[in-house]
Amino acid sequence: MRGFQTFNPQLNDFNPIRYYSSNQEEVELALEKSQKAFLNYSKTSPTLRNELLLQIAQELETAKSIIESFYCDESGLSKVRFELEFTRTIFQLNSFSDFLLNDWKKLEIFTPSNQNSPSLRKTQLGIGPVLVLGSSNFPLAYSTIGGDSVAALAAGCSLIVKAHPMHVGTSLEVSKCILSAIRKLNLDEGIFQHLIDDGIELATQLVKDERIKAVGFTGSIKGGRALMDLASQLKTPIPVFAEMGSANPVVFLREGFEDKIDHYSKLFAQSICNDAGQFCTKPGLFFIPKSEKGNELGTKLIEEVIEHSCFYMLHPSIQNKFELLKKERASLVSNLLIEKKGQLEPMQGRQALLQVDALEFLKHNQLQEEVFGPFALIILYEGNDELKTCLEILEGQLTGSIVGDSNKSTDFEDLIDLLSTKVGRLILNGIPTGVLVDEAMNHGGPYPASSDSRFTAVGTQSITRFLRNVTFQNFDEYS
Amino acid sequence: MRGFQTFNPQLNDFNPIRYYSSNQEEVELALEKSQKAFLNYSKTSPTLRNELLLQIAQELETAKSIIESFYCDESGLSKVRFELEFTRTIFQLNSFSDFLLNDWKKLEIFTPSNQNSPSLRKTQLGIGPVLVLGSSNFPLAYSTIGGDSVAALAAGCSLIVKAHPMHVGTSLEVSKCILSAIRKLNLDEGIFQHLIDDGIELATQLVKDERIKAVGFTGSIKGGRALMDLASQLKTPIPVFAEMGSANPVVFLREGFEDKIDHYSKLFAQSICNDAGQFCTKPGLFFIPKSEKGNELGTKLIEEVIEHSCFYMLHPSIQNKFELLKKERASLVSNLLIEKKGQLEPMQGRQALLQVDALEFLKHNQLQEEVFGPFALIILYEGNDELKTCLEILEGQLTGSIVGDSNKSTDFEDLIDLLSTKVGRLILNGIPTGVLVDEAMNHGGPYPASSDSRFTAVGTQSITRFLRNVTFQNFDEYS
Repeated sequence: MRGFQTFNPQLNDFNPIRYYSSNQEEVELALEKSQKAFLNYSKTSPTLRNELLLQIAQELETAKSIIESFYCDESGLSKVRFELEFTRTIFQLNSFSDFLLNDWKKLEIFTPSNQNSPSLRKTQLGIGPVLVLGSSNFPLAYSTIGGDSVAALAAGCSLIVKAHPMHVGTSLEVSKCILSAIRKLNLDEGIFQHLIDDGIELATQLVKDERIKAVGFTGSIKGGRALMDLASQLKTPIPVFAEMGSANPVVFLREGFEDKIDHYSKLFAQSICNDAGQFCTKPGLFFIPKSEKGNELGTKLIEEVIEHSCFYMLHPSIQNKFELLKKERASLVSNLLIEKKGQLEPMQGRQALLQVDALEFLKHNQLQEEVFGPFALIILYEGNDELKTCLEILEGQLTGSIVGDSNKSTDFEDLIDLLSTKVGRLILNGIPTGVLVDEAMNHGGPYPASSDSRFTAVGTQSITRFLRNVTFQNFDEYS
Repeated sequence: MRGFQTFNPQLNDFNPIRYYSSNQEEVELALEKSQKAFLNYSKTSPTLRNELLLQIAQELETAKSIIESFYCDESGLSKVRFELEFTRTIFQLNSFSDFLLNDWKKLEIFTPSNQNSPSLRKTQLGIGPVLVLGSSNFPLAYSTIGGDSVAALAAGCSLIVKAHPMHVGTSLEVSKCILSAIRKLNLDEGIFQHLIDDGIELATQLVKDERIKAVGFTGSIKGGRALMDLASQLKTPIPVFAEMGSANPVVFLREGFEDKIDHYSKLFAQSICNDAGQFCTKPGLFFIPKSEKGNELGTKLIEEVIEHSCFYMLHPSIQNKFELLKKERASLVSNLLIEKKGQLEPMQGRQALLQVDALEFLKHNQLQEEVFGPFALIILYEGNDELKTCLEILEGQLTGSIVGDSNKSTDFEDLIDLLSTKVGRLILNGIPTGVLVDEAMNHGGPYPASSDSRFTAVGTQSITRFLRNVTFQNFDEYS
């Protein structure tokens, strides 16, 4: 029987527990139970689903220390980060609870009958059993009971989570909390299924199974696109919401940052380096003007990044890919990689920057691709025309940031308009990392940042990914 | 140079005008203009877009008689039907105008800043240039300035309409109205482009062009699926909203129709036969209980359908396919086709019914497929278990209707639940044809009724198909 272990980046060694991929009987049973549970669960009241989410939060609190232990051992992320992410996970559960109590009814639209026409009541129903494939870099907030899962459960969908193999221990502990909450509320256990696989075979099988009606995914463009292709070619295509890669461009305008060079250098260095830059919103492209102040900013930003403390990478394969990509980028343009020096622990990410001219950036499309980890590319631009040309060739992004003074730049509006066609979120004078869980948040963007820019992956509005319309006509007397 | 003519079903002859497919220069220019116009148009105020829709309505009123003449000559539809559809088209324009004035601002979500977090303003932006491929059976309300087009223009998207070749004359007259309105408001003419082709080549080319960002389609499952496949396999996949086929099941419960057999027979016969049943919501499957009253209903429904007056089919190819399909269905089960007798005009649709046993229905999956035209299948069921088995094998549908008394049926709720997983709209004691343009309407359903059950094709909510989220973070001072 095939088994696998998770990896402890701090110890640079595998964790002792051996996990086994779910066998075909388990998979079939999970699908069967999920489909069966869906019909009743989709009809539950928003109040009951609200109770379920609150109960899950409570179970997580009870199991917090054991979850923390697995979380840190399997990710190399710090206890400080665990606290932040745990809090975020609880906050998400609470946000959706509030949504179910206060805003669910707003999704319903009712038009009464009149002499000429019958009544119409447009309601929202869960789309069906949802498969969630969580991300490696958020073992809690975007994983087993992360944003996708909470949105699916809130929508009245039964849920199958395929655990991320890099933190399967954390995932199992969280899954126990979800199951415990379901049992305490006397709900059907089929609502939640937890499956394990360390390859792509199980995910592929699940997406192809006609009982699965939607997919939530967070990960690479390659992985997300493969799922999209699979789902769109099915006899009955299903929606895949994939939140994928993004290089998150940051534009320093020609004016408006000069008296805050220290402030912005520190702020963005932190945004690049924190937790080894392993965030989908890590700023990876910096457009900086060729000017005295621009040069000062670039120099200072490099200094701050290089001096920043190092963090562990999540997994050897991520570490290896990071090392490979930053070297590839540098050799592509034959420029020097500006890298942190000195001895590091084996799994610590060595932050690096690369500086290129805008004209060079325009020559190599690969330069705009995401490098997952503490790396950023500085692109020096001459004038706004050059800047615009660079922005025009960008692919879809989760975020775009602009630093400058809107009153001093004649092109400010043009740049905002241009960037808004490329991104899902625009940040003025701030950093893109730290995605607030809020109904006004948009986390998603034009492809390849996400599979469907009409939906967000973060915030209560993300529930609409897993809901479909059903209008009841002439049902007044009945309901 | 290749040319083609439209067809007059009443005269059973081609109309005299010869049309020519757009050439490659015209197509390229249209795409270029559409892309250029989008950026400015997407930034226009909802008030300005509201004015545009109202102006289009006014231009249509002015051109009404010439549009009517083309409409009737090209479709075989009556002047009465023209009036209804014209009114509906104007109503749609007005509804979206109202939406822009009163409801557009509700799409925006604002969260002010606080000590810990910046402000977030989630806005909606047009997704980009939209391609609309209208339907043959609604030359006005679902075509050139039909539901998809109005939604796209309201959303701030530039619009390319590929005219339906069966009513290209009507389409051209309507396109003149749209262009005239754009000119009167001094807007960029690139907002609207009208292209012509009598094959599938141009549509294929347009979907593949990276300047097109979304597609609206109304037509067959085969056509819709081909577009979905094309769009999902692009380097940058784009959303296709396809409203496709539906057999629109009608369930007569065992009790609750007995004292209204005459009423329901007339009502549903009209729903099957009116305008030769060429509606996507035409009821095509009737589940009728095997009982004295059920038999009486079936007999009466057949009688009413057969006695109903005949209407012209839209086009020889639709007529031929209709004749072929109803015969195919009958030979499949070796049952007698119950058909209207007597001499008809060449292009009149000869209404027909076929009656089968539920067990036979379960044996032939083809029987549940849509027959476009005045045809319905009566399925006689023994008990509710048999009925449920039949409903369970149904594919996704636009509508499902239930006739009966909710108080007398023990299985009423179960049946509603079951049907609601299959359809986009449920009708109690009424007919599915006559889709109200209303924000509480849902016109769409699980695949293959539509490509994405999360969206509607009718009513102001359909605007969300062509909008994407953009969140502005920390823009307080600027905006």
